[in-house]
Amino acid sequence: MSNPSEAPVAPVEAYEPPYYVAVFTSIRTEDQSGYSETAARMEELVKEVPGFLGMDHAHTPGGLSITVGYFRDADALTEWRSNAEHRAAQKRGQAEWYESYTLHVAKVERSHGFSRA
Amino acid sequence: MSNPSEAPVAPVEAYEPPYYVAVFTSIRTEDQSGYSETAARMEELVKEVPGFLGMDHAHTPGGLSITVGYFRDADALTEWRSNAEHRAAQKRGQAEWYESYTLHVAKVERSHGFSRA
Repeated sequence: MSNPSEAPVAPVEAYEPPYYVAVFTSIRTEDQSGYSETAARMEELVKEVPGFLGMDHAHTPGGLSITVGYFRDADALTEWRSNAEHRAAQKRGQAEWYESYTLHVAKVERSHGFSRA
Repeated sequence: MSNPSEAPVAPVEAYEPPYYVAVFTSIRTEDQSGYSETAARMEELVKEVPGFLGMDHAHTPGGLSITVGYFRDADALTEWRSNAEHRAAQKRGQAEWYESYTLHVAKVERSHGFSRA
């Protein structure tokens, strides 16, 4: 999973279920050398996966990071999971960037959105 | 959904599937009067729901908030969704605290964790 820009954005919309979410929660190490370049590259790559719907990211300074990727179906997730460059980034993440993380892959059954506008 | 303390914590662990995640992504308004008290109360309340497993939260300053609630089954989520105090907080959130939000409720099929320790 990647770390999109920290700029304010609207959250990814509520798609019509079913679709998949990959929830990636992490605590990072102190040494983040090379992290942001890799994250930007992963963000580029995942957009090429057919069925990729979008990504939300939030990071509390000094605390937890959460990245949520949205995918149309399980095939899209399988393709992303087996991408060689993504796998290399995961290995480097375990070696250098993450103190701990958890990944939850789930099928969306219900969704809704609200907007003041 | 609530806004737990912003202190560094370990992410909620990878439970044995199936279980449910409720992914709540939001952009907040400028006026957050009363928000943190209500968020703290919601955090207290949700812990009383049988089948509540935990919660992760991250908030990029000036940007997106993501709260992920973990529940053992759909009944636990239904109980939380129908809690009267929670519903009142949601109404107030739409009126005052949220510019926009999206909720995705999903059944976890696969999960794993990593810890350096």
